[in-house]
Amino acid sequence: MASQPHPFDPLSPEEIAGIANVVRTSYASADPLFRVITLAEPPKAEMIKYLEREAAGDVQRPPKRVAKIHAYISNAFHELKVDVNSKSILSDVVLKGRHSHVDSAYMKQVEEACLRDDRVKGALESLVLPKGATVIVEPWTYATDGMNDMSSRITMCWSYMRFSDHLDTNYYAYPLEIVAEVSESLEVIKIYRLPTGASDREEDTSGNNAKMYDQRKVHSSSEYHPDLNTQRRSTTKPLNIVQPEGPSFAINGNKIEWEKWTMRVGFNYREGLTLHDIRYDNRSLFYRISLSEMFVPYGDPRAPYPRKGAFDLGNDGAGVNANNLKLGCDCLGHIKYFDAWHVISSGDPLKLPNVVCCHEQDDGILWKHTNFRTGNAVVTRSRLLVLQTIITVSNYEYIFLFYFSQDASIHYEVRATGILSTAPIDIGSNVPFGTVVAPGVLAPYHQHLFCLRMDPAIDGHKNSLVVEESVAMPFDTTATTVSEKHAAKSNPFGVGYTSTSTTVSHETGLDLDHTKNRTFKIINESSINSTTGTPVGYKLLPCYSQMLLAHPESYHAKRSEFGEHAVWVTRYEDEEIFAAGNHTLQSLGGEGIASWIKKRAEKEGNSGVKDKDIVVWHTFGSTHNPRIEDWPVMPAEKMIVGLKPVNFLDRNPALDVEISSQHVNRSVLVGEKEPKIVDKEKEKARL
Amino acid sequence: MASQPHPFDPLSPEEIAGIANVVRTSYASADPLFRVITLAEPPKAEMIKYLEREAAGDVQRPPKRVAKIHAYISNAFHELKVDVNSKSILSDVVLKGRHSHVDSAYMKQVEEACLRDDRVKGALESLVLPKGATVIVEPWTYATDGMNDMSSRITMCWSYMRFSDHLDTNYYAYPLEIVAEVSESLEVIKIYRLPTGASDREEDTSGNNAKMYDQRKVHSSSEYHPDLNTQRRSTTKPLNIVQPEGPSFAINGNKIEWEKWTMRVGFNYREGLTLHDIRYDNRSLFYRISLSEMFVPYGDPRAPYPRKGAFDLGNDGAGVNANNLKLGCDCLGHIKYFDAWHVISSGDPLKLPNVVCCHEQDDGILWKHTNFRTGNAVVTRSRLLVLQTIITVSNYEYIFLFYFSQDASIHYEVRATGILSTAPIDIGSNVPFGTVVAPGVLAPYHQHLFCLRMDPAIDGHKNSLVVEESVAMPFDTTATTVSEKHAAKSNPFGVGYTSTSTTVSHETGLDLDHTKNRTFKIINESSINSTTGTPVGYKLLPCYSQMLLAHPESYHAKRSEFGEHAVWVTRYEDEEIFAAGNHTLQSLGGEGIASWIKKRAEKEGNSGVKDKDIVVWHTFGSTHNPRIEDWPVMPAEKMIVGLKPVNFLDRNPALDVEISSQHVNRSVLVGEKEPKIVDKEKEKARL
Repeated sequence: MASQPHPFDPLSPEEIAGIANVVRTSYASADPLFRVITLAEPPKAEMIKYLEREAAGDVQRPPKRVAKIHAYISNAFHELKVDVNSKSILSDVVLKGRHSHVDSAYMKQVEEACLRDDRVKGALESLVLPKGATVIVEPWTYATDGMNDMSSRITMCWSYMRFSDHLDTNYYAYPLEIVAEVSESLEVIKIYRLPTGASDREEDTSGNNAKMYDQRKVHSSSEYHPDLNTQRRSTTKPLNIVQPEGPSFAINGNKIEWEKWTMRVGFNYREGLTLHDIRYDNRSLFYRISLSEMFVPYGDPRAPYPRKGAFDLGNDGAGVNANNLKLGCDCLGHIKYFDAWHVISSGDPLKLPNVVCCHEQDDGILWKHTNFRTGNAVVTRSRLLVLQTIITVSNYEYIFLFYFSQDASIHYEVRATGILSTAPIDIGSNVPFGTVVAPGVLAPYHQHLFCLRMDPAIDGHKNSLVVEESVAMPFDTTATTVSEKHAAKSNPFGVGYTSTSTTVSHETGLDLDHTKNRTFKIINESSINSTTGTPVGYKLLPCYSQMLLAHPESYHAKRSEFGEHAVWVTRYEDEEIFAAGNHTLQSLGGEGIASWIKKRAEKEGNSGVKDKDIVVWHTFGSTHNPRIEDWPVMPAEKMIVGLKPVNFLDRNPALDVEISSQHVNRSVLVGEKEPKIVDKEKEKARL
Repeated sequence: MASQPHPFDPLSPEEIAGIANVVRTSYASADPLFRVITLAEPPKAEMIKYLEREAAGDVQRPPKRVAKIHAYISNAFHELKVDVNSKSILSDVVLKGRHSHVDSAYMKQVEEACLRDDRVKGALESLVLPKGATVIVEPWTYATDGMNDMSSRITMCWSYMRFSDHLDTNYYAYPLEIVAEVSESLEVIKIYRLPTGASDREEDTSGNNAKMYDQRKVHSSSEYHPDLNTQRRSTTKPLNIVQPEGPSFAINGNKIEWEKWTMRVGFNYREGLTLHDIRYDNRSLFYRISLSEMFVPYGDPRAPYPRKGAFDLGNDGAGVNANNLKLGCDCLGHIKYFDAWHVISSGDPLKLPNVVCCHEQDDGILWKHTNFRTGNAVVTRSRLLVLQTIITVSNYEYIFLFYFSQDASIHYEVRATGILSTAPIDIGSNVPFGTVVAPGVLAPYHQHLFCLRMDPAIDGHKNSLVVEESVAMPFDTTATTVSEKHAAKSNPFGVGYTSTSTTVSHETGLDLDHTKNRTFKIINESSINSTTGTPVGYKLLPCYSQMLLAHPESYHAKRSEFGEHAVWVTRYEDEEIFAAGNHTLQSLGGEGIASWIKKRAEKEGNSGVKDKDIVVWHTFGSTHNPRIEDWPVMPAEKMIVGLKPVNFLDRNPALDVEISSQHVNRSVLVGEKEPKIVDKEKEKARL
């Protein structure tokens, strides 16, 4: 890293340590408990000027480098901003009634407190578990359901068991009926006995309803760890990616250059991977792209299950939960890994090694044409630049991938994998909101709703969102004879169609409609393509998904406003990064994207987004009604979003990609004895 | 190939030659002009029995091997069936008023006749083309528009030009205004002068309206051939797929075995690649899958453009137009190629070499889980089996790919590439149904509608189609207090949702609805998953697409009935393979999938499809309003359809895939100087 960091560079470990020291010095007697020390990205207005100066070769005047700190100081939740270089505290606010993201050290304490509690012990005893069972308590954040005061932290402790001593036993295969609610001060407030039949509710937990564990639930098919599941196919032969001349990318600090693309990699505890200042062939495309938030509400209506609803970014943090990616396991070929730095409670920097991998992939044919008159084929192969990060959130994993293509398109892919969240169910029972995936194991229905935040800068920062639809022209049936049809003004054959284009005028949420070929384009009205005569743009290739199923008046809906519509457009605001609000843990709603829009509209009328600095948000995901094939670890389910240039360039930008040749690609023919028949020259088979 | 072919094996060249001889002998004086000699697949009822016997080790009694022949005999279009072994003619029908698929030799004659015609010459002269221009005539099939008698062949000859002597010049960059209509007997019937402005119609072609070619249309940016477009990026470094132990598949004749999958590869002149008897882990999944038809209607309403509407399978043939795939160019790694055999007009067999490639690909992570308590990550990589075929239809190419996955899913992908069909437009003009992609070059709006035919055999041949939707439970707002909510019977928190399931009772067309998470499942009601307690099934992951835009009363719509709905279910009938009918060239409509359903319903009431031998058809594609980035050769546009097991197996079938390891994968770390900071052990960062 250069001695002077780029304004988008995450804080270095030295910077983190220095900032912690500033806060510790300021609160010398309080012993602050640090949760976050991260870069506060410079105001966009300043960064735009900086990027302009940078393009002109002037990097001497970066914006003020500022750190944002979350810390508990004398039990109060503080958010501070500190000038990284002058070490001065710029602001210090106590966020009353709000909570930091999940504190894993605290959660460990909750787990221990729960297992120590006599009433919990008694309740577990009432299950009369089989000999050798070890109970495992898994603390979950509390999804607000209106039944507790949310100003203090409450944790739900769900219980499971394992028989084996092997610590990688899949205990999710043995969900137990006992759940405990634990207070901020580590007191067990309430114990629930979960419903386990088709129609029942919570059961009495007084302990006098002891019943023997149903031995029919014991099974051996739910293990995934190779020590425990030794049945392995040996048919898959090795496949290696060999890059004899190394990768096609060049990395300088956090800047990536690859095949006409340039961008900067960022990373923070919450969003994980962020991308900045994305350009193609020196033309500006996006100021910033990141996953803004995700929400996983469960569909089991029975108390206390409505408390299962996870904001995996806001509550847990995609950055702090990012996997250390392993060479040859998570990615193939020539891999560049990026590390990140977080902070531990003492304020010491914590290395998060290999949290992002950068590599290339072949993606089949990029473009091809055969001239049927000459028989000459010209074919190019598609090479992709891949930036991958993977997070583990308790039982589940998400793989997040950005793909950059030589044709100037970007694809964002989410792969859902890992282990389903499970609940106990009686043998022989079924419920309409879950799938029985193993004996006694219910995998409840749930949704995964992701919100991708795209801050466009298509040829500059004044952009508009356009909704385009393809519509049939009215069928002109007045013309009946040949000559009339030839002379008809409009659509005498009923085959004509055109596209309609509507610029979105104010901040709003919009829905998808494939029946109209509804297309969302981000355009720059001032930058006209000289050939097509239309504004340059990029179009969104959405991932068609069902939106949030929870009732609009439910807390799930109030807390995840972004889940109401597939596409949102807002005016750019520095503080509006997280679509469900800044603090989602036990949030009460009313602070997400819809609220921003509503508040601005009330204050200043509908906020114009035409030819303005705008942000486009795409909500997508899956309604995941589990299959048994998703158990015990689910095969990755892919969800894909795309961004493609539309009349942005002057032709196919990948026209210059090298023609594919066996000389370079060195493939191997799999031989078979050919029948002894003389080839006839292939008849010119094409019209 | 074994001495006794499998009943699904395409005809061998010896068989083709033998059949041609039978027909020639029968019509000794007529000199038949052969168009097709292909396998008539055995009746399914017989094949089901055969496949059962085959599974039991008895392959001695194959069904009768029959060839289907299309031939012009004394100018009449015959369809014959011949017993391949006994050489006896089983049937011989003259298809009056119908036409065979495109005859490239005849089309060449049309082209020459057109260029010889004095009126055409005069019309071309009236364009006053630049010096050195060579006019190229491109014959197109005539999409019925109601303006001619369709019982004889009519060809539309569109004209282009090139300046360069290089035969791979992109002449589509110079569309000319002159179009000729040519009769079956090679007479020029009519000459059109195309409209070239925004609102005008066809123009006078009398020749006295000569106008100088607009030199502003001359440009140099539309060439794609490496001889003519020498600007090539040199930044893309080689990437090789190395398989040190060879591929993981085994090929025996046309049978492929790979990672628990077995299937048979078929191929015919019309559908190209077909797949038969697809099984996973010895369980039957699909009797046959193939692309049934595709239709490409153009949206320019001005005569004579409504005559542009291509059935690329029925009119042209995906088989006869299949590319000879090149090692290292069209596919990487260890490649097995399949050849096919067609027939030339004399009856001699014609080899179509390397029309299908079979290879493997890595597809990133298949499944992963990290136990946050132990930190142990278990990760497997996804390997795919890929079967690829590519067709060239004049200016355009389609890449068709089947992907088989270790997790028992199948994906079908279409990539559209090649050169856009173009039309002339005046400099400065624009039209609402096309994009100006280069000076004077209009790329009209069009649709690509594909119909994938899936003949399921999910655990047997009696299957049903189920429509499943995810629906919110009614919000029970009567409970308000905590205890009431805990005791409430239904959905007191407003978060519950369930799925509804409706078995389709009769043959019909259905639409997609992502807002309801509408899912189409093919199930076997008699085969119950012992864990989930529900019928085994496979679900369709549709490609969300706009359906046909042409008016229902237009010929485009009448001829492409499958374009009305996204999903169709019909009762299995041996003769119902082609969703737009058996003979699409100049067809008049009323013989596609909707007509089959309607006719059966009229005859016998709604035809039941519950627990029957059914066929499921999926219509998908793109409304292609060209971007300038699609010019001069478009980057491949992907459309993807999936099929996934749903409660078909007893768990994730890829659980046994070998754990990913650097020992096998041998990736390479891209190094960078690390800052000299001592790592701290990563805090257990997870809840």
